Amino acid sequence: MSQINKVVLAYSGGLDTSVAIKWIQENYDCEVIAMIGDVGQQEDVEAIKKKAYNTGASKVYVENLQEEFVTDYIYPAIKANAMYEGKYLLGTAICRPLLGKKMVEIAQKEGADGIAHGCTGKGNDQVRFEMAVKALAPELKIIAPWREWDIKSREDAVEYAKYYNISVPVTKEKPYSIDRNLFHSSYEGGILEDPTYEPDEDMFIMTTSPEKAVDTPEYVEFEFENGIPTKINGEILEPIELMEKLNEIGGKHGVGRVDIVENRLLGMKSRGVYETPGGTLLYHAKKELEYLTLDKDTMHFKELVSSKYSELVYNGLWFSSLKKALDAFVDKTQQNLTGKVKLKLYKGNIEISERKAPYSLYREDLATFEEDEVYNQKDAEGFINIFGLTLTTEGMIQRNQN
Amino acid sequence: MSQINKVVLAYSGGLDTSVAIKWIQENYDCEVIAMIGDVGQQEDVEAIKKKAYNTGASKVYVENLQEEFVTDYIYPAIKANAMYEGKYLLGTAICRPLLGKKMVEIAQKEGADGIAHGCTGKGNDQVRFEMAVKALAPELKIIAPWREWDIKSREDAVEYAKYYNISVPVTKEKPYSIDRNLFHSSYEGGILEDPTYEPDEDMFIMTTSPEKAVDTPEYVEFEFENGIPTKINGEILEPIELMEKLNEIGGKHGVGRVDIVENRLLGMKSRGVYETPGGTLLYHAKKELEYLTLDKDTMHFKELVSSKYSELVYNGLWFSSLKKALDAFVDKTQQNLTGKVKLKLYKGNIEISERKAPYSLYREDLATFEEDEVYNQKDAEGFINIFGLTLTTEGMIQRNQN
Amino acid sequence: MSQINKVVLAYSGGLDTSVAIKWIQENYDCEVIAMIGDVGQQEDVEAIKKKAYNTGASKVYVENLQEEFVTDYIYPAIKANAMYEGKYLLGTAICRPLLGKKMVEIAQKEGADGIAHGCTGKGNDQVRFEMAVKALAPELKIIAPWREWDIKSREDAVEYAKYYNISVPVTKEKPYSIDRNLFHSSYEGGILEDPTYEPDEDMFIMTTSPEKAVDTPEYVEFEFENGIPTKINGEILEPIELMEKLNEIGGKHGVGRVDIVENRLLGMKSRGVYETPGGTLLYHAKKELEYLTLDKDTMHFKELVSSKYSELVYNGLWFSSLKKALDAFVDKTQQNLTGKVKLKLYKGNIEISERKAPYSLYREDLATFEEDEVYNQKDAEGFINIFGLTLTTEGMIQRNQN
Amino acid sequence: MSQINKVVLAYSGGLDTSVAIKWIQENYDCEVIAMIGDVGQQEDVEAIKKKAYNTGASKVYVENLQEEFVTDYIYPAIKANAMYEGKYLLGTAICRPLLGKKMVEIAQKEGADGIAHGCTGKGNDQVRFEMAVKALAPELKIIAPWREWDIKSREDAVEYAKYYNISVPVTKEKPYSIDRNLFHSSYEGGILEDPTYEPDEDMFIMTTSPEKAVDTPEYVEFEFENGIPTKINGEILEPIELMEKLNEIGGKHGVGRVDIVENRLLGMKSRGVYETPGGTLLYHAKKELEYLTLDKDTMHFKELVSSKYSELVYNGLWFSSLKKALDAFVDKTQQNLTGKVKLKLYKGNIEISERKAPYSLYREDLATFEEDEVYNQKDAEGFINIFGLTLTTEGMIQRNQN
Repeated sequence: MSQINKVVLAYSGGLDTSVAIKWIQENYDCEVIAMIGDVGQQEDVEAIKKKAYNTGASKVYVENLQEEFVTDYIYPAIKANAMYEGKYLLGTAICRPLLGKKMVEIAQKEGADGIAHGCTGKGNDQVRFEMAVKALAPELKIIAPWREWDIKSREDAVEYAKYYNISVPVTKEKPYSIDRNLFHSSYEGGILEDPTYEPDEDMFIMTTSPEKAVDTPEYVEFEFENGIPTKINGEILEPIELMEKLNEIGGKHGVGRVDIVENRLLGMKSRGVYETPGGTLLYHAKKELEYLTLDKDTMHFKELVSSKYSELVYNGLWFSSLKKALDAFVDKTQQNLTGKVKLKLYKGNIEISERKAPYSLYREDLATFEEDEVYNQKDAEGFINIFGLTLTTEGMIQRNQN
Repeated sequence: MSQINKVVLAYSGGLDTSVAIKWIQENYDCEVIAMIGDVGQQEDVEAIKKKAYNTGASKVYVENLQEEFVTDYIYPAIKANAMYEGKYLLGTAICRPLLGKKMVEIAQKEGADGIAHGCTGKGNDQVRFEMAVKALAPELKIIAPWREWDIKSREDAVEYAKYYNISVPVTKEKPYSIDRNLFHSSYEGGILEDPTYEPDEDMFIMTTSPEKAVDTPEYVEFEFENGIPTKINGEILEPIELMEKLNEIGGKHGVGRVDIVENRLLGMKSRGVYETPGGTLLYHAKKELEYLTLDKDTMHFKELVSSKYSELVYNGLWFSSLKKALDAFVDKTQQNLTGKVKLKLYKGNIEISERKAPYSLYREDLATFEEDEVYNQKDAEGFINIFGLTLTTEGMIQRNQN
Repeated sequence: MSQINKVVLAYSGGLDTSVAIKWIQENYDCEVIAMIGDVGQQEDVEAIKKKAYNTGASKVYVENLQEEFVTDYIYPAIKANAMYEGKYLLGTAICRPLLGKKMVEIAQKEGADGIAHGCTGKGNDQVRFEMAVKALAPELKIIAPWREWDIKSREDAVEYAKYYNISVPVTKEKPYSIDRNLFHSSYEGGILEDPTYEPDEDMFIMTTSPEKAVDTPEYVEFEFENGIPTKINGEILEPIELMEKLNEIGGKHGVGRVDIVENRLLGMKSRGVYETPGGTLLYHAKKELEYLTLDKDTMHFKELVSSKYSELVYNGLWFSSLKKALDAFVDKTQQNLTGKVKLKLYKGNIEISERKAPYSLYREDLATFEEDEVYNQKDAEGFINIFGLTLTTEGMIQRNQN
Repeated sequence: MSQINKVVLAYSGGLDTSVAIKWIQENYDCEVIAMIGDVGQQEDVEAIKKKAYNTGASKVYVENLQEEFVTDYIYPAIKANAMYEGKYLLGTAICRPLLGKKMVEIAQKEGADGIAHGCTGKGNDQVRFEMAVKALAPELKIIAPWREWDIKSREDAVEYAKYYNISVPVTKEKPYSIDRNLFHSSYEGGILEDPTYEPDEDMFIMTTSPEKAVDTPEYVEFEFENGIPTKINGEILEPIELMEKLNEIGGKHGVGRVDIVENRLLGMKSRGVYETPGGTLLYHAKKELEYLTLDKDTMHFKELVSSKYSELVYNGLWFSSLKKALDAFVDKTQQNLTGKVKLKLYKGNIEISERKAPYSLYREDLATFEEDEVYNQKDAEGFINIFGLTLTTEGMIQRNQN
C-alpha cells in the first residue's frame, strides 16, 4: 500500500462508509475527511455529519450540490437525449462525476493526497468516481476498500462495526441497494438479481404504480428555451423547484419506472430498476419539441450522438474530451429548441397533447394533401426517378444477368 | 405521355382509385387491371372486386397476402427492431413493398407495360410503391394520376365520378385518411394536420384508450425461436393467428398508440397517428429477450443498424442492396434469440415481468454484489487504471499547462 | 416560366455561360448581372469581365474571394478531415457555396429576383449552387438553362453563339471539363467517362506526375495552431500565400492526384480525376497531428463525423443545420491541435518524418516495453479478465450447449 | 498461483519464449508443450523445434498455418476493408487469433489445463491471444510470464538463460521488435519509440524504399470473385502463392509501408511501423472494385462497418459475436464483387489504371453530360426542389425572424 496521509471519503452515513472511515484509518494510518454531498437524497445531513465525526472523521464537509446537479448535469443530459440502452436515464451516472469533482476540490483545498469511496468492485460507480478523479487530479491516490478488505458481506461489516464501536443502523436493511437523488431513485442487487422477480410495490419511493395512480388524467405544459426547461404550467421555476415539481407530478401519475437488464461497463449484465418521474417527463417533453424544430438530417445524426453520449456517461467519462465535443454538437442543435409542449399524464402513460414552437419546421401547408404554394407535386416525379436511379440500374443489371 | 397499353392498378375500392381506373383509360387509352391486395384491412374484398369490374377494370386480381406479410415483412422488421424516429413501427412502410411486388408479378404475367397507384404527390407511399417497381421490374412504366391530373380535392373527384357514373360512397368521409392492415392502422391528413389537435377517441379502430381499457392487468407470455415469435401463452400459433391474437390483447389494454410529427422522405414534416397493438407487444417482448442474449457490443452496434434499417424501410428501399446486407447482419444476431418473456399489460402500460433464455448472458453469480467464483474484484483496479489511462494522461498534461 | 426581372448569373467567360446570358435575356426577358468569382482559377478576370459586357450583361461584378475561400471553406474542411468516399478532398464542393453566397449578396444588393448558373442537369454543382440560394435567400428564383433549353451539345452552343454574335473561343476545346480554384483542379466528362482510360499526362495543370517529379526528396515542416496551418518551413504565411506555396511544393513532387468512380448525389456513378497538391499535404499533415493529440474515443468518433460531414458538403449542404452542428463538434476537437509535423515528399509519396505537439498524448514512457512509473503491467491481467468477461461467458454457455 | 499441470506455450525460438519454458516449469511445476505456428515468418522451424526440446519442452508441435491464415483471416479482413485508424492493415491482429485457436486445439487434444505466451503486459498481443482462448475454451488457465516474473530487460533474460544453460542467440539483437508473417512485417519499440526518429532503410524486410525501387512502372491485373482474389495477371494462383507473388511485386515497387502513432487497446498511444506489400495491393485493388459495384448507401454504411470491424479485430475480438454478425453483412456486400482491376505501381505509388466489372453500377450513358435515354435532366429540378425543401423552410423561418 502506497503512503497516503489524508484522504477525502464520499460519506453516506450508511454502514459501509462508516466502517470505511475506520478501516482506512487502521490500514493506511491516515486522516479521513468525510464529504457528504447533498444531491437531493432527502436524508438528514446534519445527523449524518454528526455520525461521521463520531466514527472518526477528522473533518466533515456538507456540500449542497442540488442546483449544480440540475443545471450542469441533468440539463446537459436532457439536451443530449441521454438514455442508456433505450431505457435508463442515467440518474446515478450523471451524479457521480459531480461528487467526484467536489471531492477533488476538497482534497486540493485540504492538501489531501487521496480520495476514497465505498463502491464495490463489480459496479459502475467505482469507475465513475475514479474517472472524475483521474481527469481532474490524476495525482490523487484512490482507496477503494471493497476491492481490498476482507469484509465480504453485511455480517462481516456489522461485526467490524461492533468491534470498533461504530453504531449499526437498527432498521432492517432493505433486500436491495438504493441510490437516490433529485433526478431518480435506483434499485439493484439482492432479491432483484432474479430477473423473474417482479419488485414489490413498496420498494418505490418517488412514484406510485400505474394501478394506484389517480384516476383522472392531468395535462402539464412545459416551456423550453434553447433546450432548457424554464416554465411548468406557465410558471417560471428555479432549477431545484422545477425538478421537485416534476417529480411530484410524475410520481403521482406513475410515470418513469423502468426495469432493465443492462450491460455494465465491466462486462457483465445486471438488473436495475429505476424511477425517474420528473426526468422522464422532461425527456419526453423536450424530445417532442425536437420533432418540430430539428430537421431530418440533424435528428437522425443526433440519434448516433445520443447513443455514444449515453455510453460515455454511463461509463463514467463525463469529463472526457469526446463528451465535451459532443456537448458542443448538442448545444448547437438546441439553439432553436424553444417552445411549448403539453403532455397528458394518465396512469403511467405520457401522451403528447400539443406542441408549438416559433422555429417549428412543421408547416401544415407543406404537409397537407391539399394543394399549397411552396410544394409542387410534379416535382415528386423527378425526385422519385432520381431517388430510385440506383435501384433502376441494379434492376436492369439483374435482369440482364438472368 | 408515353405509350402504355396495359397497367396494373393497386385498387382499394375507394373513390380515388375508382376514379383512377376511368381516368387512366381516358388519358392513356389503355387497359386497366385492378389488384386488390388483402393485407388484413378487414374489408369486403368481394364487393371491392365487383366495384372494380363495374368501374371498368378489364380484369381483377384478389391477392391474399396476409401470411406473406407476417412472415416476410413483419417478422424481419421485428427482428431488426425497426422503428422510425423512435416511435413509428413502419406498418404502412413494410406493406407497400409487398403490394408493389405483387403488382409486378401480375404485370409480368399479364404482359402489362406499366403499374399505377392512387397515392398523392406529397407522401411517402408513392415512393414506396415505385421503388419496389424500379427494383423488381425497372422496365415498367409508372402512372401516378395524383401527380398528373387536375383533380385537386374530394369535390373534384366526386364530380368526376358522377360524370362517369362511378358510384360514390354514401357514408360521410372521415376527416383524415386511414391505412389499415394486419399490423397497424394509421391516420393522417385533414384535421390531424393541426399539431395541437388531440384526436377523438372514436378515430381508433384497433385499440381502446388507456382510460377505457379494462381495469385488471393481464400477463402475456411470449416465446421466441431465433427472433421469431412461436407461442403466445404457451400456445403455438400460425403467423396470421398470432398477429390477430396479439392485436386483440394489445387493443384491449390500450397499448400501441403513437402520435408523431415525423420527417417524410420528401423533406417536409407531417403528423401521423398510429395504432399497432400486436406489433408493439412483439417489439417490446423481443427486445426484452435481446437484453438477455445480446452482448454489449452487438447490442450497441445494432442500435445503429436499426436506425439505418428503419430509415431505408421508411424511404421505400425494402428491396435495396443495403437493406439486404443489414438483414444478413440482423439474422446473425438473432441466432440465440430464443426464450420466454412475460409482459404485464395495464391501461396502456407494458411492463416486463419475467424473462428467461437458454443462451442468456445474464448470470446472477456475475452480477451479484456478493462474492462469486468467476469474477475477481481485484481485477477491477487494473481495469480501471487502464480504462482511465487516457484521462490520466490528459489530466497530467492539463496540469502541466497551467 | 415565372416572371423574373433581374438575375445574377455565375459567369465564367466560357461558351456556356456566355450563351446563357443571351438565352436568359431572350427567354425570360430579364436583365442579367454577371458575377465573376475569383477563387484562384488563374484566369484573366478583366478579359472575362469585358466579355460579359460584350455579351449583354447589364452589370458585372468581379469578386475576389480567394482569402475567404481559404479561411472559411478550406480550413473548416481540413479541420473536419473532409474527404468524400476515401479519395476526394471536395475542392469543387466547398467552392460552390461560397459562389452561391456571393450571388445572393449581389442579388439582394441589386434587388434581383433570381440567380442563374450554367451547370448541367446531371451534376452535383447545380445542387450546390441552389442549396446555397435556398438556405440564404429562399425567395430567389433559380434559372438553370441546361435543364430548360434545347442546346444539347457544344455544336448547338456554337451555333447559338454565332447566331447572336457571341465570340466563340478559337482554341480547341478540351475533351473533358475542368474546374479549377486555389485548392484543386478537377476533370470529368468526355474521354474520361471511359473508366479504363488512363488520363494523358498533359491534362494535369497543378502537378507533375510521380515519374517526372524531381528525383530528390524534400522535407516540409508544417505548424498548426488549433487545427489551422500557420507556418510552412518556419515561415508565417498568409492564407492565400500558404495555399500557393503548398500547391507549388506538392505539385513539384507529384502528390495529390486521385482518380475515382464516385457516387453523385443524383444517384449515378461518375468518374472524376482531381489534383489537390497543397490540400493533400495539409490534410495529411494535420491528420498526423491528430494521431498525437486526439484520444482514441474522439478519434474514432470523428471518423463518423468526417464521413457524414463529407457527405453533406459533397451534396451541397454547406449551410445546413447539421453541417453547422458538426462544425461545433470539430472545432472542439481542434482545440489542442497545435504542433509541428514534418513530411517527406518524394515522387508522389508523402511520408511522415517527424511530429511534435505540446498536448501530445503519446508518451514514450507509457508505450515503452521497458518498465515505467505510471503503468503497472499487473493491471493488464485485471483489464483483460474484465475486457474478456463477455467472451468467457459466451464460451461457457457454448460449451454447456454442446 | 493456481494449480496447472500442463500448458501449451506459443513458442518462437527467441530468447523470451525460451526463458519462458524454463520459468514456467520452475514456477508452476508443470509440463510445457511448445507450439510453433508457421504463418509465413520465414524461419527455420526445424531448428526452432530442436531448440524447444533442448530448452525443456515435453513435446513440440509445428503447425503449418499459412493457407488457413490466408483464406480464413486475410481474405475476410480484405473483404471488410479492415484498416485500423486509417493506416494499419492489422497484419499481427489477424494472426494472433489463429495462433490462439491452434493452441486451444492442442491443449484440448493433450489434456492441458492452460496456455502461455511471451507477450508483454503493455501490448495488444496478450489481449489477442487471451481473447481467443476465452472465447474458445474459457476453462483454460492463462500464464503470461511477462506480467508475473522479475525479468524486466534483455540483460535479466540473458542472465536467467545462462543460469539455466539456455542457449543465447549470438547475433546482436535488433534495437526494436519485429513480428513477421505472410501478410506483413511490423516493427515497434526501442529506437522507434521516438516519434521524430525516421527508421533506417535496412530495417525493412519485405519492401524496398520508394527511392530504391525500380525505375519502370509496372501494371498488375487483379481478378476477384465475390470479393476473393483469384487471379493475378491472368494466372490462377493458390492462396499462399498469391500472397507471395503480391508481396514480391509490391515489395519491389516500394508499396505498403506505413508509420503510425496508433491507439492501443490499453489506453496508451504507441508508434508502429508496418510493411504490408501484397496486402496493400489487395486492399486497394478490391476497393477499386467496390467503387464500381457497391451502391452509394451500401458503400457509405460499409465505412461504418469497416471502422467497427477494424476496432474489434485490433482489440482481439476476432471470435466475438459482433465480429461474426459484421462478417455476415460484409459477405452480403461482396456477392457482386467480381471483376478485374489493373493497378499501376511506381516507386511507392499505387494508381488505378483500369477497372471492369460485370455488375458495375457505373454506366457511361448515365454519367455523361451528353443526353441519354434513362436520365431526364428535367427530373433534376424536381429532385432539387424537394432535396432542398428543409433548407427552404429554414431559410424562410430565418428571414421571418429577422
